[in-house]
Amino acid sequence: MSRIGRREEDSRLLLIEAYRELVEMGADPTVAEAIYVGVQSEVYEHQIMYGTLAAEALGLLPREAYRVEACAAAGALALRSAYMAVKSGEVKAALAVGVEKMTARGTEAVTDALMAASHHIDQRSGVTIPAHYAMVARRYMHQYGATEEDLCMVAVKNHRHAVRNPKAHFQRAITLEECLASRPIAAPIKLYDAAPISDGAAIALVASEEVARKAPTPAVEVVASAVATDTLSASQRPDLTYPRAVAEAASKAYGRAGLTPKAVEVAEVHDAFTINEVLMYEALGFAERGGGYRLAREGATSLEGSIPVNPSGGLKARGHPIGATGLAQIYELYLQLTGRAYGRNTGARVGIAVNEGGVNSAAVVHILRAP
Amino acid sequence: MSRIGRREEDSRLLLIEAYRELVEMGADPTVAEAIYVGVQSEVYEHQIMYGTLAAEALGLLPREAYRVEACAAAGALALRSAYMAVKSGEVKAALAVGVEKMTARGTEAVTDALMAASHHIDQRSGVTIPAHYAMVARRYMHQYGATEEDLCMVAVKNHRHAVRNPKAHFQRAITLEECLASRPIAAPIKLYDAAPISDGAAIALVASEEVARKAPTPAVEVVASAVATDTLSASQRPDLTYPRAVAEAASKAYGRAGLTPKAVEVAEVHDAFTINEVLMYEALGFAERGGGYRLAREGATSLEGSIPVNPSGGLKARGHPIGATGLAQIYELYLQLTGRAYGRNTGARVGIAVNEGGVNSAAVVHILRAP
Repeated sequence: MSRIGRREEDSRLLLIEAYRELVEMGADPTVAEAIYVGVQSEVYEHQIMYGTLAAEALGLLPREAYRVEACAAAGALALRSAYMAVKSGEVKAALAVGVEKMTARGTEAVTDALMAASHHIDQRSGVTIPAHYAMVARRYMHQYGATEEDLCMVAVKNHRHAVRNPKAHFQRAITLEECLASRPIAAPIKLYDAAPISDGAAIALVASEEVARKAPTPAVEVVASAVATDTLSASQRPDLTYPRAVAEAASKAYGRAGLTPKAVEVAEVHDAFTINEVLMYEALGFAERGGGYRLAREGATSLEGSIPVNPSGGLKARGHPIGATGLAQIYELYLQLTGRAYGRNTGARVGIAVNEGGVNSAAVVHILRAP
Repeated sequence: MSRIGRREEDSRLLLIEAYRELVEMGADPTVAEAIYVGVQSEVYEHQIMYGTLAAEALGLLPREAYRVEACAAAGALALRSAYMAVKSGEVKAALAVGVEKMTARGTEAVTDALMAASHHIDQRSGVTIPAHYAMVARRYMHQYGATEEDLCMVAVKNHRHAVRNPKAHFQRAITLEECLASRPIAAPIKLYDAAPISDGAAIALVASEEVARKAPTPAVEVVASAVATDTLSASQRPDLTYPRAVAEAASKAYGRAGLTPKAVEVAEVHDAFTINEVLMYEALGFAERGGGYRLAREGATSLEGSIPVNPSGGLKARGHPIGATGLAQIYELYLQLTGRAYGRNTGARVGIAVNEGGVNSAAVVHILRAP
């Protein structure tokens, strides 16, 4: 993974930075016969066909390459595609690539980014993505008694984790008071409840067991991979506070892995807004419905807690380069499961990742296991 | 497949029209556990996340769904994804969906459509996609002695085929004189050398052998599926007149199928411009390099010829709804291989399809066999 943050380099150089680390780890990415790419370059670079572009930038032409997309879930979808390509036997190894160069565009990108909302309903209503999550947060607080402090606790935790992550966008702690005093974006969501706009890239080399066994670097096992969807517009759902797509994808993933939530020892989840991390606790089965916010309050999801969530700092503090995020999560799980996360090792043997697109409109869940 | 052409309906209704035919054929699309979608909706509908939208429009939530993209190659990539998903065992059946609603947008879409060209090279030079193909055509004519008449022969043939296709955009024949007299777009390319802007949708149900055998409708076998890439900008290639990505994908597909070009009895190829159909003849091994244009001149690729190409009318006359095109090709091969192409049956038992993105920057090849 490249360093995440406000970067001067263009997206191809960020890709190469991630690729270089893969090589330095001892992996041979040229064994990959296909490249699947998660990116939202139509919004941030006026560029489509980024599959071809990535293959070209990495010197991997004329290999199979294409882009996969479900907004911010694209990175994990690249992994899903690589996983299925290898499992099908069509290729022995594939690269899952995620990248985004967001900071070169100004606020006019906001209009383009709204392409992820329903053209037929939400785009014409003028509601933005933060406003959507504000409604979710407001309803959740009303329904279960959570407070703005509870939501800020998630941000405080994730910033604290990111202090130990040298590649994180924000490597500094924040206090609860700072979070509460940060400026409103869409009440009750404040600046510090929201993930930043970041640049970055991440790559996973996915290989068959046979290829992986010969590699000089330890591999982690993809135990399960699953995707589920929900209405594009949140307005069409019976319950705003229950992310059905995540629950469905998690249920499929647990089923395919033959595991229950209790087996999970570390998680990377899609905290684009703090409320969403709380919803993930519940959808993944770490807490009962309405009880998620207590996990952050009690410290259960801290590095030292019973189920560490977002040890990387999460989208909130590691950063959220859209197309790269899903694979940045996988990168963190890889480090955690192989004991390479330095100052933030959890010793976990089973990890789960949840990457999402839209307002919980598409969810991708992966379960990984230590070698 | 929906009827192709200038349609009043929005893209979701076109999808439903295609879906309805699938059901009327006796297939049960609800056995699909995943939906992969080819569409260029970021250009034509200010909409991303079309995977979720398609699942919702077809009543298939909360199934796995996402979008795949390599510009106009998206439809065939949806088939590739569905094929790998089924072959991997992750799902028993999947839908490959392609759709595009192009005519609702005016000429301002041209700027957005240029996102398929390299941002770093071609977009800033101002060269358009037709201008690219004009350079290819000019070079090919210079190198091999082909004429504008030879290129127009492809258009004349494809229009003649489309007369027998009740779903084609243009169900009328044109004469060589009309083609030659049509207005220049980017010389030597004239209006009748270019595929139209069309609306339409096509869907393929891809299933394991076990599921397919139980279906009441005949299935065709996907014998091979392959993807290859070339530089995003054609300016970076040593030879403009040789579509390396197509040759590479075809070579992989023939290898995987254990077949040679001689085994192919019908082809649907990506004739976005007439010159490109000629290049496909050569890249697929139907003719030697520089000899492709003679096939059209001699009638070998007509319905009555030795290797019928684009019996549907091709992109040129059936129409070219970007995301749907790759699956419209597969629909035609399905009809041909099951003897359902009515007035244009070729009796073929093995068919090949080539779908492309950019200026030969990504190619997807499928080989199908009759039941």
